[in-house]
Amino acid sequence: MVQWVYNFGAGAADGRAEMKNLLGGKGANLAEMASIGLPVPPGFTLTTEVCTRFYEDKCTYPAELKGQVAKALALVEERSGQKFGDATNPLLVSVRSGARASMPGMMDTVLNLGLNDQTVAALAKRSGDRRFAYDSYRRFVQMYSDVVLGIELSHFEKLLERAKQRRGVKQDHELVVEDLEKLVMDYKARVHVEIGMDFPEDPHEQLWGAIGAVFNSWMNQRAKTYRQLHDIPEAWGTAVNVQAMVFGNMGSDCATGVAFTRNPSNGTNDFYGEFLVNAQGEDVVAGIRTPQELTIQARKSHGSDLPSLEEVMPNIFRELCTVRQQLETHYKDMQDIEFTIQQNKLYMLQTRTGKRTAHAALQIAVDMANEGLISKSQALMRLKPELIDQLLHPTLDPKAKKQVIAKGLPASPGAAAGKVVFSADEAVRRAKDGEKVLLVRIETSPDDIHGLHAAEGVLTTRGGMTSHAAVVARGMGRPCVAGAGAVQVDYAAARLSVGSVAVQEGQILTIDGVTGEVILGEVPTVPPQMSGAFGTIMAWADEYRTLQVRANAETPNDARQAKEFGAQGIGLVRTEHMFFDGGRIIAMRRMILAADEADRKAALEELLTMQREDITELFRIMDGRPVTVRLLDPPLHEFIPHTEAEMAQVAKAAGVPLNRVRRRATELQEANPMLGHRGCRLAITYPEICEMQARAIFEAAAAVGRAGGAVPVAEVMVPLVATLQELSILKEVVEKTAAAVQKEQGMNFTYRVGTMIELPRACLQAGKLAEQAEFFSFGTNDLTQTTYGMSRDDAGAFLPEYKAKGIVEQDPFVSLDQEGVGELIKVAVERGRTARNGMKMGICGEHGGDPASIEFCNKVGLDYVSCSPFRVPVARLAAAQAAL
Amino acid sequence: MVQWVYNFGAGAADGRAEMKNLLGGKGANLAEMASIGLPVPPGFTLTTEVCTRFYEDKCTYPAELKGQVAKALALVEERSGQKFGDATNPLLVSVRSGARASMPGMMDTVLNLGLNDQTVAALAKRSGDRRFAYDSYRRFVQMYSDVVLGIELSHFEKLLERAKQRRGVKQDHELVVEDLEKLVMDYKARVHVEIGMDFPEDPHEQLWGAIGAVFNSWMNQRAKTYRQLHDIPEAWGTAVNVQAMVFGNMGSDCATGVAFTRNPSNGTNDFYGEFLVNAQGEDVVAGIRTPQELTIQARKSHGSDLPSLEEVMPNIFRELCTVRQQLETHYKDMQDIEFTIQQNKLYMLQTRTGKRTAHAALQIAVDMANEGLISKSQALMRLKPELIDQLLHPTLDPKAKKQVIAKGLPASPGAAAGKVVFSADEAVRRAKDGEKVLLVRIETSPDDIHGLHAAEGVLTTRGGMTSHAAVVARGMGRPCVAGAGAVQVDYAAARLSVGSVAVQEGQILTIDGVTGEVILGEVPTVPPQMSGAFGTIMAWADEYRTLQVRANAETPNDARQAKEFGAQGIGLVRTEHMFFDGGRIIAMRRMILAADEADRKAALEELLTMQREDITELFRIMDGRPVTVRLLDPPLHEFIPHTEAEMAQVAKAAGVPLNRVRRRATELQEANPMLGHRGCRLAITYPEICEMQARAIFEAAAAVGRAGGAVPVAEVMVPLVATLQELSILKEVVEKTAAAVQKEQGMNFTYRVGTMIELPRACLQAGKLAEQAEFFSFGTNDLTQTTYGMSRDDAGAFLPEYKAKGIVEQDPFVSLDQEGVGELIKVAVERGRTARNGMKMGICGEHGGDPASIEFCNKVGLDYVSCSPFRVPVARLAAAQAAL
Ligand SMILES: [Mg+2]
Ligand SMILES: [Mg+2]
Repeated sequence: MVQWVYNFGAGAADGRAEMKNLLGGKGANLAEMASIGLPVPPGFTLTTEVCTRFYEDKCTYPAELKGQVAKALALVEERSGQKFGDATNPLLVSVRSGARASMPGMMDTVLNLGLNDQTVAALAKRSGDRRFAYDSYRRFVQMYSDVVLGIELSHFEKLLERAKQRRGVKQDHELVVEDLEKLVMDYKARVHVEIGMDFPEDPHEQLWGAIGAVFNSWMNQRAKTYRQLHDIPEAWGTAVNVQAMVFGNMGSDCATGVAFTRNPSNGTNDFYGEFLVNAQGEDVVAGIRTPQELTIQARKSHGSDLPSLEEVMPNIFRELCTVRQQLETHYKDMQDIEFTIQQNKLYMLQTRTGKRTAHAALQIAVDMANEGLISKSQALMRLKPELIDQLLHPTLDPKAKKQVIAKGLPASPGAAAGKVVFSADEAVRRAKDGEKVLLVRIETSPDDIHGLHAAEGVLTTRGGMTSHAAVVARGMGRPCVAGAGAVQVDYAAARLSVGSVAVQEGQILTIDGVTGEVILGEVPTVPPQMSGAFGTIMAWADEYRTLQVRANAETPNDARQAKEFGAQGIGLVRTEHMFFDGGRIIAMRRMILAADEADRKAALEELLTMQREDITELFRIMDGRPVTVRLLDPPLHEFIPHTEAEMAQVAKAAGVPLNRVRRRATELQEANPMLGHRGCRLAITYPEICEMQARAIFEAAAAVGRAGGAVPVAEVMVPLVATLQELSILKEVVEKTAAAVQKEQGMNFTYRVGTMIELPRACLQAGKLAEQAEFFSFGTNDLTQTTYGMSRDDAGAFLPEYKAKGIVEQDPFVSLDQEGVGELIKVAVERGRTARNGMKMGICGEHGGDPASIEFCNKVGLDYVSCSPFRVPVARLAAAQAAL
Repeated sequence: MVQWVYNFGAGAADGRAEMKNLLGGKGANLAEMASIGLPVPPGFTLTTEVCTRFYEDKCTYPAELKGQVAKALALVEERSGQKFGDATNPLLVSVRSGARASMPGMMDTVLNLGLNDQTVAALAKRSGDRRFAYDSYRRFVQMYSDVVLGIELSHFEKLLERAKQRRGVKQDHELVVEDLEKLVMDYKARVHVEIGMDFPEDPHEQLWGAIGAVFNSWMNQRAKTYRQLHDIPEAWGTAVNVQAMVFGNMGSDCATGVAFTRNPSNGTNDFYGEFLVNAQGEDVVAGIRTPQELTIQARKSHGSDLPSLEEVMPNIFRELCTVRQQLETHYKDMQDIEFTIQQNKLYMLQTRTGKRTAHAALQIAVDMANEGLISKSQALMRLKPELIDQLLHPTLDPKAKKQVIAKGLPASPGAAAGKVVFSADEAVRRAKDGEKVLLVRIETSPDDIHGLHAAEGVLTTRGGMTSHAAVVARGMGRPCVAGAGAVQVDYAAARLSVGSVAVQEGQILTIDGVTGEVILGEVPTVPPQMSGAFGTIMAWADEYRTLQVRANAETPNDARQAKEFGAQGIGLVRTEHMFFDGGRIIAMRRMILAADEADRKAALEELLTMQREDITELFRIMDGRPVTVRLLDPPLHEFIPHTEAEMAQVAKAAGVPLNRVRRRATELQEANPMLGHRGCRLAITYPEICEMQARAIFEAAAAVGRAGGAVPVAEVMVPLVATLQELSILKEVVEKTAAAVQKEQGMNFTYRVGTMIELPRACLQAGKLAEQAEFFSFGTNDLTQTTYGMSRDDAGAFLPEYKAKGIVEQDPFVSLDQEGVGELIKVAVERGRTARNGMKMGICGEHGGDPASIEFCNKVGLDYVSCSPFRVPVARLAAAQAAL
């Protein structure tokens, strides 16, 4: 026979903490606490399987359930020494939902169940507090009517209001017992009017009504929406916990409280919590009375003039301290607990892993490892890598009020506030004047890089987690909210609007890159805090991980930042980014617009100088660590603007006729630029560009070497290779250039020529490519686009719906599609290493900073991941977790 | 010791016809003819390996060569009974190149070698014709000086001119022997002036000079260019043939001629050729004298008043007829031969497989099989499938003169002439007035379909073999030249220009879709001829092939055409094409621009009616054969224009505000439409479209069934699937709709739901997809684009260079990339069939009509190929060849 009901209480339990799937989080932890001897009021749990069966069988219960509940109830009666519905010593119970994952406030709860006109009298007598009894009764009738009978609360509120008017008082607690007695009668009369039936007096009827209501609440709209938002499958179902009531509001020897076993804000090993004497749990939450601290120390440090629990109930406090110790020893993690003191007796009502700030999470993990409670590797495994990311950026002050006007994708972490500007140029202009600006664009392009640099953060109304703005912002460590579709941007009017809210250029907005929120006005931020725990965790991570971590970086700032964060090299220098700045783009455009070979050569000569300087600086900063420089990748039209006015400017700046700019722009236009004339295809058709870049790299290596610096291992990377011949042709160009530079400079340096693997064909041909390639770097952005046939710039139109419908679990541009793209990577790794033993392989797509993807990279045997500088610490931790 | 020299002659030979790689085509066939006893003047061949070694060893010969040549020369002397350089009976030789593949006129030849002041006298004496001897000598000096010594021919032409002036005559043959004797002296004097040395008198020196010149000519610019154009590898090298001279110009018992063993124009089994009495081979080609027919029958049928060879030299004619018989029996194919008659003796100088028209090729293959000369399967194997294509379209009259002004890609076969128009609307307007028009566009889009229909052919200046214009034109059987980059189109001025040639709208151009030529003015065309041989070949092909052949078709015309050509079903109905016509696009736009659900539903209702009618008609025409209907595939923005004027029109036609059109156009805009919101992604986000289409298909099936027609097997195909979930969701929509229609109509019909496999991920996931998909159809256009990361619309910018540099052998959009895309297909076939035993699979990309790709499809076990109607016969033959 299936066990549908699990008992707990009196130092024993049928369930365990590990049985969350069956008993829900609350039920499993109640069972666990009971079984380790903590004072838990007795009760039982109807499993989540009852819920699933309930919905499978058209809202009917398994046949055996009734009998099992009856038996369990009898056991509660026995353990509590009370009897359900008894006229002298009645057992009252709470009925609460409890799903696998916490869904706070989403489902229904009924308290004080078992009260009726008979049992209320007994409660009054036994508590010696008639008012308490009738207040409990009144609350029960109201709650039950709402939750189980579906009667609108306003009816009862009106009656309560009238009672207070009659009595001439303002507050509920000023009502006297007679008022409450009458109210109960009024409530019940109202119930009869509303549903044409009497309020159920039979406690068993009450119980089954409440159980049914909780199961039904699994499918209410609130719960459905919450599950959708939090990716909780409907099939999980909820458990129902029926538990003997205990009361913190039976007098001055009663209390109720919540606590964290350590400080959830900064992680210190202090007992941290609040309580209220003679109160119910909801009173603590309601905030009408000021709660008291648990410890003397906390009372003092908060300057509270209310006595602490340590002072008011020293015995109970000591007992609670023991419980705290027991729980941490048992769960080996910081706990968030709820307790009630009824007539000088402590009851534990809940324990669960405590939520904490990123900062506290690190501190607690390090402390617990140092205390010997957990091992170092457990400490590492326990930390979500994303926490690390939060630590590196300013965050919104959690206490600040905020008026959220829109929500986009949390594209780059951190919070930023600034005056809204709508163009990169304006951003630069204002930033020079010392203003803090927030760049708002429909979408960004490489043309906007200087604006992104100048801004505190960026907000776009179109594009996904890997849109241009998102990628660049993450790379720079700038907060970014992307694809906030509700925001309408009117460039001409220099204004944005969301519904009726309009924001003019110069007005202030705040964005939160962790939540995706767009907030009106300035919200104070908290600067990033990097404690000693951060360094400790990073050091431990480095002990365990086998994957190397590099960074994607082009600018000296990024490279320095990456090194500071522990990057072991640069895995991707996107050389094209070096051509967007001021004078550079002019030279670049002159090269593209060159009328003839001579013209082109002259422009290339200029670019060579700049590129060499840039790369020299990177080599110098990276100080002997490997640096992988990728040849020019984007299609040339990205460097040429398309509006008439901009083209006229370009023509003037580059000193060529406007007509040529127009013609060239038309020539270069592409239907699908992502699949166009780019990557190594450019180097094949313009070998002089490849030669110039190779020369810049090698001359830079020579310069650094000659200046006495650690000579870098230059890795020249050919992008978008599909066939061996492409690679062979370009490798020859690079090798010839290297030989020439070595001869000219009279010095030797080590270099490698490798390729990005970013097309399905390259994965399949990896065996052949490995004949020529000395390393592989997986470009998983392009590889995802081509494997899925999905442009990351355009996927915004359908990906959200794809996620909602469960077609994809994760945005494949954020977390590697292991089944599809992953299989191609595995094939490429195998074939590449078969052809070239021990070949070095890494990943330099956006996925290089995603923990799940890093785990995959570790599993398939890559040597390194490369990610944006601000993701390096995240990657170090994720790499350690992957290795553990 | 390596054999560098191969002898032939006197009924024996070292070589054989199969040794073309080593001996070149000419040498191998001379050897073959000699060995089967045909009268070949003796000679020897220096192998192609000599050439390769020559270039590897810095233009020096293998050490053993000299000795081997000396020995071979001695054998020729023995066989001819003459002696090289002998003062009384001198041996004269020709020295000719002979590569593996024919390279007519590209390399050098020297005739009459061995003549000098002594041997010329002997020649005069033995021939009894002093003038003949000195004319031969003069020609030799001139030819040798040009070819071997590198002296400009103009020098000799001036001297010849002066000689004629002196004699007061106009023609060369009016010079008398004294003039010629003097000319030889003048020529030699000139040689001394030019090179500072005497003309070589030593025949051995002459011989080595000529051999060296031929080898050197392998690398001359003409030859290099030719090889590039014809994909002939440089590494092949050329052979050199040295052969005893025979003279057709030694008197009236001499002659020279060329012949085909069958009629190369229509294939009839007639001996077909021409000859000239007392002439040299070059005289036949020069066309100064009118050649005579070989047979009496030919003389009569051409109405010639010159006697035939049959009449002039009946014995020789009989001998030649025997040779003809021998050659066909031996080679089992029609031969193109050259012969010379010297003093009543027949010599065979060349035989090779004769070039023939497509028409003749079929006739000859059928006849030879019927004659028992070859088997049916040999007949099939011998025919290039492309020949079939030529038969189905008008071709340019081969005799017509043409002024080619540009060349593009031969994108759709056939020739077409018409008045140039630059817009689809203009094409339709003029076509309605009965004018023949040629549509000229930079590129075409689905918007231009009506123009393509109205035009005789289409010329584009951008795009490749699988650009929109090319695909649509092939589908319609319209000739198309695509990507003619030299043609500049100025829409505003309604003019195109190529260099200084300008063509105004309304002027006439001709295009040849087989050669890619663009020709000024109208060139007469020859209508397609479909002889009985065509039917026979098709019937034989059907006997052997195992692959089924279907067609891609949307219109009734295409479907009828396809059925006529033997299509066994429709493999791809691109439903979107049905939405571009007149009223349909308006409804389609109304659907896209719908303000709300109701609006959209109304528009869909309209589309349903149209779609149902269209599909009903297709089902009716295909008469029970399977029809695969693909759900809407292109992104919605393809249906909405982008210029203001057009948008205003659309707004008016669809009855919506212009602003909404503008906004929707912006919303729908995509960075990479090929990777955008299209294919099944549309059906996922707009399930109502999918439902409408499924309903149209099933209601059509019901209608045809109810009308008593053969009920079709409707195959519903979901495009661009990447995950199983996409397919599952849409299959459910289709199945629900099918069930509904069956219930409404009270009848059952068979249908299948399958998917296109056109993304790398789909190939990898084929095992999963096969759980739901009842058939697979490989969409190799998209699969090639994504596997290669290459847009077929943009590849024109680099693919030509890729081909030139040998990076790709074939445009992968024309012939399937078997290594890359092919591997994915293989994986998908395996995984699909493992999951679903015997699953039906086909291909419906452009590659379905490409013979090499068809062979691949056969090999990997597909069940059918589907191609444009006009490719169906080609595919039937190719499928048979694949099976053989
Ligand atoms: Mg890439
Ligand atoms: Mg497709």
